[in-house]
Amino acid sequence: MRTRLTERFRLDLPVIQAPMAFVAGGALARAVSGSGGLGLIGGGYGDPEWIEAQFEEAGNTPVGCGFISFALEQNPGLFEQVLARKPVAMFLSFADPAPFLEPLRQAEVPIICQVQTLRDACHAIDLGVDVVVAQGGDAGGHGQSRGSMAFVPEVADEISRRGSSAILCAAGGIADGRGLVSALALGADGVVMGTRFWAANEALVDPRLRVPTLSRSGDDTVRTKVVDIIRGISWPERYTGRVLKTDFVERWGHNLEGLNDDLEDQKAQWQAGVDAADSSVVAPFVGEAIGLTRDHLPASEIMLRLQRETKEVLAGLAVYG
Amino acid sequence: MRTRLTERFRLDLPVIQAPMAFVAGGALARAVSGSGGLGLIGGGYGDPEWIEAQFEEAGNTPVGCGFISFALEQNPGLFEQVLARKPVAMFLSFADPAPFLEPLRQAEVPIICQVQTLRDACHAIDLGVDVVVAQGGDAGGHGQSRGSMAFVPEVADEISRRGSSAILCAAGGIADGRGLVSALALGADGVVMGTRFWAANEALVDPRLRVPTLSRSGDDTVRTKVVDIIRGISWPERYTGRVLKTDFVERWGHNLEGLNDDLEDQKAQWQAGVDAADSSVVAPFVGEAIGLTRDHLPASEIMLRLQRETKEVLAGLAVYG
Repeated sequence: MRTRLTERFRLDLPVIQAPMAFVAGGALARAVSGSGGLGLIGGGYGDPEWIEAQFEEAGNTPVGCGFISFALEQNPGLFEQVLARKPVAMFLSFADPAPFLEPLRQAEVPIICQVQTLRDACHAIDLGVDVVVAQGGDAGGHGQSRGSMAFVPEVADEISRRGSSAILCAAGGIADGRGLVSALALGADGVVMGTRFWAANEALVDPRLRVPTLSRSGDDTVRTKVVDIIRGISWPERYTGRVLKTDFVERWGHNLEGLNDDLEDQKAQWQAGVDAADSSVVAPFVGEAIGLTRDHLPASEIMLRLQRETKEVLAGLAVYG
Repeated sequence: MRTRLTERFRLDLPVIQAPMAFVAGGALARAVSGSGGLGLIGGGYGDPEWIEAQFEEAGNTPVGCGFISFALEQNPGLFEQVLARKPVAMFLSFADPAPFLEPLRQAEVPIICQVQTLRDACHAIDLGVDVVVAQGGDAGGHGQSRGSMAFVPEVADEISRRGSSAILCAAGGIADGRGLVSALALGADGVVMGTRFWAANEALVDPRLRVPTLSRSGDDTVRTKVVDIIRGISWPERYTGRVLKTDFVERWGHNLEGLNDDLEDQKAQWQAGVDAADSSVVAPFVGEAIGLTRDHLPASEIMLRLQRETKEVLAGLAVYG
């Protein structure tokens, strides 16, 4: 299958694995890249030793790396460290990508920029990033509220209106061949998938939390600031994180003030939940696509299934043509 | 183009026009049904005289009717009145459809049931409604927060898991051929479109409000309770209405308590805004698809364009097949 995304990165399928912080290590990135997708290490908030270990784990397989850009801004040494690893691409989200463009261009590393609003999409397009990822609020983890369905074609129109050659990917709510073809229909050149790869065997997820999560619906997820507050991570106001609803999250979701008032005790309760892998407390960062994610599999098997489903969906649509 | 939806209602294109309260009158429903789609009068909160006038306006063209079901529950006479008009279908949202099923079946009127959560979808499927509409939060007007992208295939899986023959439509964020094909890829048999028809010439929308709205982005919409509070309409807690952001909505969106405290004054300001068609005050109920809706057109032209775009998108996808 050939799209502008597969041609640019020499992929078999137009699929980028989301660089999920703490979850997407070198083993997952290697497995995805080795199966014809684009695997990315989740650089997240930027722990140099962890990132180094993940690149070691990825070995000779070409992988990229993603960052929460505002964390990267505070740690320029990290940026150099990753460039030295010659990543296939750098995936930037949640801050202005402008400061990173020049060094990435000089290093000839393609820039994938994820955005959550049309306003930010326009900025990324005008900066000339290589790939724009339009991330809908359906996505797991941090983001904003635009729905993928209207957001993706609106960004496609803006790319064309501005005469840009940026490649467009859709993120948010995509977990199978239906979502992939749907994104192509909306004008994207490919997709970014997180939740489906969160359930890959290679993902750094505690199986005690993964198994009960796989029977949940997209209804059971929510965008919230609870988990950031409890972890003491300061995110810009406009971003929330989509997580699985747990008793803990439901208790505090509408009472952030109460949570802040009792923070030390609640942090201790959360930590006890983490230590015990208590699924009534710990809220994994998964998207609405968890309702389409019913099993854990090796990433290579996820890619094979995706390829098969994509063919089936395209054949089904051909009847209408 | 043939899908299970077109076959069931003898349509040329698998498109249902959303029964937008106050906006979708007989002229719009007639124009859509007359152009190969399924046109619906927006029965809304149930004003018998207005509804009667709209059916008159629709004339001999077969159209259906939609209701906010909790309003219909309070007004059973209205239900009889509409059945006497032999509607092509009855479209029910925002309450348990169970009480209406038996009389609709006896009258041989197909039941279209719109849902916003998987839980409600399962209930509608088990009741045996004819069409389930999976409405994503991207939609304009009242709804909840699920994104269309993951919600639609999750409902499709549930229909199949339950061995149901329900027809599935996608609503929320769909305004053109890209959205239509995208919905088919996700497993839907057709789509419900609101915002695109809100911009039809036949829609009952003040042109002074419509024109400035057509240059806005999906970024400029928001889910809120402000407009319900200001109109004094009591909606169940879980539903919000997606509207265009205006100064008025932005002022009160995060301060509903303040709005309630100053309600009489604010109602007067709102009413003055309505009388003057002041687009800094009045917030039309439009969805994120407003960013894909750049012009107003006759509904027949919208349908023609949709047909052309759908063919183009399908031809584009055929390359991948």
